[in-house]
Amino acid sequence: MYRHFDGELKTLKEKLLRMSNLVEESISASVKALIDRNCDLADQVILNDDAINMMEIEIDDLALRLLALHQPQAGDLRFITSAMKINNDLERMGDLAVNIAQLVGDLTKIPAPKSIIHISQMAQSAQVMLRDSLNAFVNDDARLAKDVCKRDDQVDDWNRAIFLEMFEEMSKDRKVIKQDLDLILVARNLERIADHSTNICEDVIYIIEGRVIKHHIEEREQ
Amino acid sequence: MYRHFDGELKTLKEKLLRMSNLVEESISASVKALIDRNCDLADQVILNDDAINMMEIEIDDLALRLLALHQPQAGDLRFITSAMKINNDLERMGDLAVNIAQLVGDLTKIPAPKSIIHISQMAQSAQVMLRDSLNAFVNDDARLAKDVCKRDDQVDDWNRAIFLEMFEEMSKDRKVIKQDLDLILVARNLERIADHSTNICEDVIYIIEGRVIKHHIEEREQ
Repeated sequence: MYRHFDGELKTLKEKLLRMSNLVEESISASVKALIDRNCDLADQVILNDDAINMMEIEIDDLALRLLALHQPQAGDLRFITSAMKINNDLERMGDLAVNIAQLVGDLTKIPAPKSIIHISQMAQSAQVMLRDSLNAFVNDDARLAKDVCKRDDQVDDWNRAIFLEMFEEMSKDRKVIKQDLDLILVARNLERIADHSTNICEDVIYIIEGRVIKHHIEEREQ
Repeated sequence: MYRHFDGELKTLKEKLLRMSNLVEESISASVKALIDRNCDLADQVILNDDAINMMEIEIDDLALRLLALHQPQAGDLRFITSAMKINNDLERMGDLAVNIAQLVGDLTKIPAPKSIIHISQMAQSAQVMLRDSLNAFVNDDARLAKDVCKRDDQVDDWNRAIFLEMFEEMSKDRKVIKQDLDLILVARNLERIADHSTNICEDVIYIIEGRVIKHHIEEREQ
């Protein structure tokens, strides 16, 4: 009985990994579409979101079935409930990639803004955070998970810097206001993608160490 | 044994209600601070977020304990796992209220923008959605929950309208760019607050009817 349960936990992990691959591809394609000014690729991201949504429901169903059929305790229970949260974070990251893809159309109508290079660097940081958060999850690597949480501040800094840059630019030239507003929204979506990676890492640390690190509860309890 | 479990489920529900009251107060105060240009009230919202964060951890712990100690099946299992999701949504709504509160300082440095009236109307819709989503949860009212889901589109419309209004305004007068950017961010935070109410209502429908309505899965299966 227990070995069968182990197999099912492995399936849950594998499904989450497939889900995160889909989401990673979606984020990567949305940013590529923005930089390459490729509307077809942006449309593809929007279409592919369906598969991510269906996968979320499938993973949620499996997790619920495991909770109902077995009596998971301690580590297994933490793993399954955290898997449900990670699943939810991944699905929302997929939505954020769609948000970015939906902005591509308008941005191709104007000359390529020079600030796109900063968006691209920010996107890269956010993507590496997602990849590392899933690596931390697969390899039970609490150290990597903690490292990802720290990197969230850098992405927040990027977001603020891009906001200020756009603000300066649109104050000087009203023709760029619409495009700069769109780029501010792209940056905010990337920042939220990074936030979700941080959420995932907090869950990974909770699975491994059985302690809640969000809201800095440990510092509080000392 | 079972009656004791019932009591614990009731406690979980009560705690979620207290949490939602805190969040509702936080949203309401952040918008009031913005409209009344009251920095002290905004600071209060930021300080109070701590209590919401602690409450999230407390509710999560209780839900996990119920899963570990009892063997909830069917309706009870759906209730507990959905309570964990609702808890998460509420905590994030608290963060969004803090985001709004953090924008108040800058906005008090300039004359009151006339577009604040639209923000105020949008905020009211978002607040009623939260209240109704929790009413739907407490009273097992799937009909009300479905109604709240429909109202999400109206809040999205508000958000788009405010964005366009700000865009027009800042295109005409560069002095208002900074304030209008801040108001666009306020509107986006309100839109996300409404999104979380929709998430809660989808969970309420799932608890009551045992079916997933998000991503319109039912239409798909017909």
